Amino acid sequence: MSDIARRIDAANDEALRRMLSGEPVLVDVIPAAEAIPTLKDRMILHAGPPVEWADMCGPMRGAVAGIAVFEGWAPDLESAARLAGEGAFDFRPNHHFDAVGPMTGMTTIGQPVMVVENRAFGNRAYCTINEGLGKVMRFGGNDAEVLDRLRWLRDDFGPAMGRALRAGDGIPLKSLVARGLTMGDEMHQRNVGCTGLMLRALSPAMAETARDLTALSKALAFIGGNDQFFLNIAMVMGKAIMDPVRGIEASTIVTAMSRNGTEFGIRVSGTGDAWFTAPVEMPEGLYFPGFTEADANPDMGDSTIVETIGLGGFAMGAAPAVAGFVGAGNASEAANFTRAMAEITLGQNPEWTIPALDYQGVPSGIDIRRVVETGLAPTINTGIAHREPGIGQVGAGVVRAPLACFQEALKAFAKTQGVA
Amino acid sequence: MSDIARRIDAANDEALRRMLSGEPVLVDVIPAAEAIPTLKDRMILHAGPPVEWADMCGPMRGAVAGIAVFEGWAPDLESAARLAGEGAFDFRPNHHFDAVGPMTGMTTIGQPVMVVENRAFGNRAYCTINEGLGKVMRFGGNDAEVLDRLRWLRDDFGPAMGRALRAGDGIPLKSLVARGLTMGDEMHQRNVGCTGLMLRALSPAMAETARDLTALSKALAFIGGNDQFFLNIAMVMGKAIMDPVRGIEASTIVTAMSRNGTEFGIRVSGTGDAWFTAPVEMPEGLYFPGFTEADANPDMGDSTIVETIGLGGFAMGAAPAVAGFVGAGNASEAANFTRAMAEITLGQNPEWTIPALDYQGVPSGIDIRRVVETGLAPTINTGIAHREPGIGQVGAGVVRAPLACFQEALKAFAKTQGVA
Repeated sequence: MSDIARRIDAANDEALRRMLSGEPVLVDVIPAAEAIPTLKDRMILHAGPPVEWADMCGPMRGAVAGIAVFEGWAPDLESAARLAGEGAFDFRPNHHFDAVGPMTGMTTIGQPVMVVENRAFGNRAYCTINEGLGKVMRFGGNDAEVLDRLRWLRDDFGPAMGRALRAGDGIPLKSLVARGLTMGDEMHQRNVGCTGLMLRALSPAMAETARDLTALSKALAFIGGNDQFFLNIAMVMGKAIMDPVRGIEASTIVTAMSRNGTEFGIRVSGTGDAWFTAPVEMPEGLYFPGFTEADANPDMGDSTIVETIGLGGFAMGAAPAVAGFVGAGNASEAANFTRAMAEITLGQNPEWTIPALDYQGVPSGIDIRRVVETGLAPTINTGIAHREPGIGQVGAGVVRAPLACFQEALKAFAKTQGVA
Repeated sequence: MSDIARRIDAANDEALRRMLSGEPVLVDVIPAAEAIPTLKDRMILHAGPPVEWADMCGPMRGAVAGIAVFEGWAPDLESAARLAGEGAFDFRPNHHFDAVGPMTGMTTIGQPVMVVENRAFGNRAYCTINEGLGKVMRFGGNDAEVLDRLRWLRDDFGPAMGRALRAGDGIPLKSLVARGLTMGDEMHQRNVGCTGLMLRALSPAMAETARDLTALSKALAFIGGNDQFFLNIAMVMGKAIMDPVRGIEASTIVTAMSRNGTEFGIRVSGTGDAWFTAPVEMPEGLYFPGFTEADANPDMGDSTIVETIGLGGFAMGAAPAVAGFVGAGNASEAANFTRAMAEITLGQNPEWTIPALDYQGVPSGIDIRRVVETGLAPTINTGIAHREPGIGQVGAGVVRAPLACFQEALKAFAKTQGVA
């Protein structure tokens, strides 16, 4: 084995060790401005690698207009869009601020964010609260109903969830996700099990710290009515797990995969904070009644952090029921996706196992070398937004990360090792 | 085809139609004395077919002594046992009173019972609330901790759950169980998914109708802390589904399977209310640390109503994670149990399907003819109680219903059809 290969193996061992030894704990919900001091007025964090207004897709523009109205930076959606075009807002990726966001991924000062602390490494990560299904801002929704819900999350639900979490020592997520994998969740398009487990863990303290019973009832109904409530928690957990894996010299492990609706980007441990991007692909999936693929926006969101840690499409074998929902073929063949992803990853997660595969661990640690060698791009389970602003979710599907990102990353990585 | 065979087929079609068209809804929690007017003072309903004190196993005797103290019929456990031996209590099977109970299955006037209404047929069924895991009365526990918990269920939790249910139109169980089957539950030894779904459905109304936040918090923590909370709901649902299937002339479908810890008994639609019994078998399973099969009581409880409706051991293919817990072999082979049970049942349940088996319905409607012909006895997933009173659960396992029950039932059935 060459010196370089040995160096890479040692670096990847360390990367996988850090990844698998993370101890993510959901500890708080606080205003984004407090959680992220570098997040300023009129700054809008979005999903994916950097993107400016001119290149943003429809739902991303819809969400930007909506969040500007929500924050009081514009009186209405039209003015907000005009202001955005004039450069009034500072657009930055969530990933540059220890944060992630689903689909359009809007994070701004006035929103509450959930805080996950990685107790093995001391870092924290942030994500907004999942808004529920249908017409919501993450899918580009921006009407009064959407903004009213965001206000309720800011003024009522977020503070209530924060009080409950601060009353205890936080909710450890690693064991909760391990149980979710025995309950048919893959933590991207299916979070039914983990949402119930989270409610079981959270509701006693929510009652203990509630200010009135009607508000509490509404908060419990909000969690109870949203099968995807846990998605944003899985995402912020993923960010908290992967951030300590960044910047390991000579490691070829992927530390983030993310899409802004226009471009797909990845980051690799050994190449630091650089993004390697390519145009996003179109998911292949199933559409809600009344919609077709002609309505679909290409792939979008920071939620691919879930695949980055071995869940989502990588854990399809744990979630046969999701296969039909995302149009991935027969439920009984869901495990094939998990088996394929084992070919591009460094190992298995011994704490996140799949009963139906006799407790095989989820494939963990995407190695850009193996992706390029095999031509097997990561499988991603995803929601699908309407391509126009203001409409919302139209379906769910499976999409592949573009191979070009991994090829570009491998070239840049080779340079760091003195290889042409 | 003979006239008799045609008559039996038609009767079984009707039996399966009734079974699959049940609409069980959890509607209330009320005192047993109110739910079951024929349940009198000093009457003790127990699991399984009829059994008297002299023939009761250790944990059943322990539970009897405990419930007598709880009801104030005896000052202490010793006196209670003495009184039982002197004939002071009237022992009757739960099944004779529209009720079921897990393991020892104690039902008495002072306990709260959950009420499930079968809206397709108008009948109601009753079951006590699951006490949680470990040292509990259903496994023969009877000390102060056990009795205090029963008092709290009577005075606090039961009324709170009843208020919440009465505030709405009840919680439909058929669709909830359908979701549970996509979440790795088989509803006998694994109810993790359904317990979360039930909390999601119940907690908003529990908050709405709560009297104080501390009591509410304790109630939510009780549900949240008990993975088997849903078991008793699955059981009472099963009783409500199967009762309208009773008494169909010429039907060979099993309407109840139940064990009192001494005998296993079945009832068959075409033979009315007769019990066909045989000595209970010993489960083969896994034991908690510190216990072995030498500590185990034989098979016990009304919970086999769950297998009678196609869940539990019959739905093992939906619950690979339970296979290890009950010692049923490799998780990846759990579906073999479901496939085997299809050989002794009349059909599949189109509303209760198993994703990993490409949405095959759970095997439904046990036909005593097929059991006798194939020699394949129903597979049952079960908890295992300590054989001595007062100790509690020591493990979980798989057990077969004794074939002799089915052979006896078939002989009696043949007589009803004029066959020797």
